[in-house]
Parts: sequence; C-alpha cells; structure tokens
Amino acid sequence: MPFVRIDVPSHFTESRLHAVADAVHDSLVKTFNVPQDDRFQALQRHAAGEVVIAPSYMGISHGRNAILVQITCSEGRSVPVKKALFAAIAQAVAAAGDLPPADVIINLVETVKENWSFGNGIAQYAAAD
Amino acid sequence: MPFVRIDVPSHFTESRLHAVADAVHDSLVKTFNVPQDDRFQALQRHAAGEVVIAPSYMGISHGRNAILVQITCSEGRSVPVKKALFAAIAQAVAAAGDLPPADVIINLVETVKENWSFGNGIAQYAAAD
Amino acid sequence: MPFVRIDVPSHFTESRLHAVADAVHDSLVKTFNVPQDDRFQALQRHAAGEVVIAPSYMGISHGRNAILVQITCSEGRSVPVKKALFAAIAQAVAAAGDLPPADVIINLVETVKENWSFGNGIAQYAAAD
Repeated sequence: MPFVRIDVPSHFTESRLHAVADAVHDSLVKTFNVPQDDRFQALQRHAAGEVVIAPSYMGISHGRNAILVQITCSEGRSVPVKKALFAAIAQAVAAAGDLPPADVIINLVETVKENWSFGNGIAQYAAAD
Repeated sequence: MPFVRIDVPSHFTESRLHAVADAVHDSLVKTFNVPQDDRFQALQRHAAGEVVIAPSYMGISHGRNAILVQITCSEGRSVPVKKALFAAIAQAVAAAGDLPPADVIINLVETVKENWSFGNGIAQYAAAD
Repeated sequence: MPFVRIDVPSHFTESRLHAVADAVHDSLVKTFNVPQDDRFQALQRHAAGEVVIAPSYMGISHGRNAILVQITCSEGRSVPVKKALFAAIAQAVAAAGDLPPADVIINLVETVKENWSFGNGIAQYAAAD
C-alpha cells in the first residue's frame, strides 16, 4: 500500500539508488507493519541541478547527496509511529546510501483505504472491509 | 482536474505508453465524469530497474510490465464509483498496453476543490462555488 | 515544508527550468509565508510528448509550453491565500519562463503537520507542537 517515490541527484549510481530504495522499504516493513511484498516504488535519478534543496533549513544542513522520499500510504498511523518511520528511514538510508541522515528528506501523503488497486482493477482494501 | 502520473518501465515504447495514457484518461471520462478536455498527465519511462514492484502481493502476480498510475483528483467520489474507475482502468490499460490487468497498479490522492488552477492563476473550481 | 514537483516538456532549457523553479519558490515565500530556506523541489524535463495536456479546458488554451506544478504542503491555508498563491505563481512563472500564464497548471496536495522530516529522521513540525 505504500507507493514510494524516491528522487535522487544524477550522480547516484544504480546500485546506490537501489540500496536506498531497499532501506526505505525495510523501514516501512519494520515500523509501519507493511508486508514485505507490499512494495511499489518509482525511483528517479534527476539531471544535474534538478533536485533543488536549500543548503540549510531549521538548522539542518543539506548537501549534494540530499534526496527526497515521498510516501503515499493509507491514513491512520499515530504520530509516534510516523516518528519511528522517519527515524528508521534516516538511519537505514544513511547507512545503505552512504549519506548523512540530515540529507534524507521525507514526506507522507495519506489517503483513505479504498484508494488503492494492486492489480486486476479491484480495490483490494475496500473489498476487505 | 485529475492530474495523472503514469510511471512505466524503460522498455515501453512511446506508442505503447501513449496508448496506456489514453486508456487511463478514457476511463476517467467514463467513470468519474471527467470532461474529455480535462486531461493533465505526466508520463515517465524509468531507467531499467527503477520501477520496483514485488513479484506478488495479495495473491496478485506482477511482472516486468507492471505500471504505476497515480491520480490526484478532487474528493467526493463514492466507493462504488472508485471501484468502477479501477475496473475500467485495468481493463482498458491491459487491452491498450498489451499487459495483464494484474500489472496495473492504481492509487488515488484526493484534494479539496479549491486546490486547482488550470491556468491564468485562477482557482477555477473555487471561483465556481 | 512545501515539496514541489515541476514537470515540463523536453524543449525547456536548463536555465529556463531553473527560472521557473525560482519563480514558484518566490511565490510560496510571498503568499504562503514559506521561509526562504524551506525549498525542496524535484524538477523533471519529460521526453517529447510525455507531458500530456488537452489543448483547452474551461476556456483556457494550453500550448506546447504548458507545465505542471504540484505542491505538497501542510494543510491550513484559507481559500483566499490559495488564490493568492496561484495568482502569484502564474504571474511569476510566466514572466520568468517566457510562457503564457494560461500554461501554468497548479495543484496543491495538503497533509497534516507531522508528515514531514527535513533530515535526521525527526518530524520537525510534530516536535514543535
């Protein structure tokens, strides 16, 4: 159910991008109770200069390895669970992608349960209600 | 009003991608009462391996032709109407794009009516209220 | 806190795309009270034909320079403030990007405050509550 977009700068290698993507998914599995097979990701390496992030915001510096992780998921997680997700992603992505945890920018977009179809044109979560 | 992002693997040809995009739009017209001219789509062919989908989720297998369709639209459609949209997209995309309906992944993101401008800096739907 | 995706056709030069991105950010600063350093943008030039917009919708014509601006931000702005943002973006982008204001398509997606991490795995806005 999470649909994850990961946007990275052009100099990320394919293997580095995949390590980052794996780390994001592992963090969703661990903190959001996402099933291991519930993985839907669109990865994008952008042309030079096309990931635009200010050098610093709220006292946190961002460098040339800063990445954007946007996760669309069903609503209903508590604030503590969201905090646990952010912490897990920053730690895991930093380790797997060899970048500072400061450079991991995350945004959640939440939707109602019936807004998903995982194939065959069925709203699987609505049908389960 | 729907803003549609369609993310496909690198091996999709331009004509196949456009056939898929036409099928998604036709389905919105038929089931969501979207005007024919209300078409705003960003299509993206991703580099090899950059659409990442698990081989199977909830008993549905996903192969190398699996695609991601994310539709941002105004809120207010009922669950049956959303189910009709998913069914229409899966059927139409599968036929037009020569891929299994199981490989059509769909997600809706809903917004309030005033969150759109279709040009000239006007919130056309808010103005109509 | 705004996360901005800007999708433009392939013929936009790098400098034109950056001028558009600057104009969008300046408009957020002026009308949404976004801090100057609160800038997170993913820019994308699409392959030919992969930004698909109907020639006209609601009486507004769209040409080959039409672009899509999708802004994810925290909820809570009033309708008049949103209208001011749209007007500012259309005017500023048209001037900076040398395109008709009719060709600036904008969509807002709103989230709750705690759905952001600007680095280090902390939900900065949740922590501030």
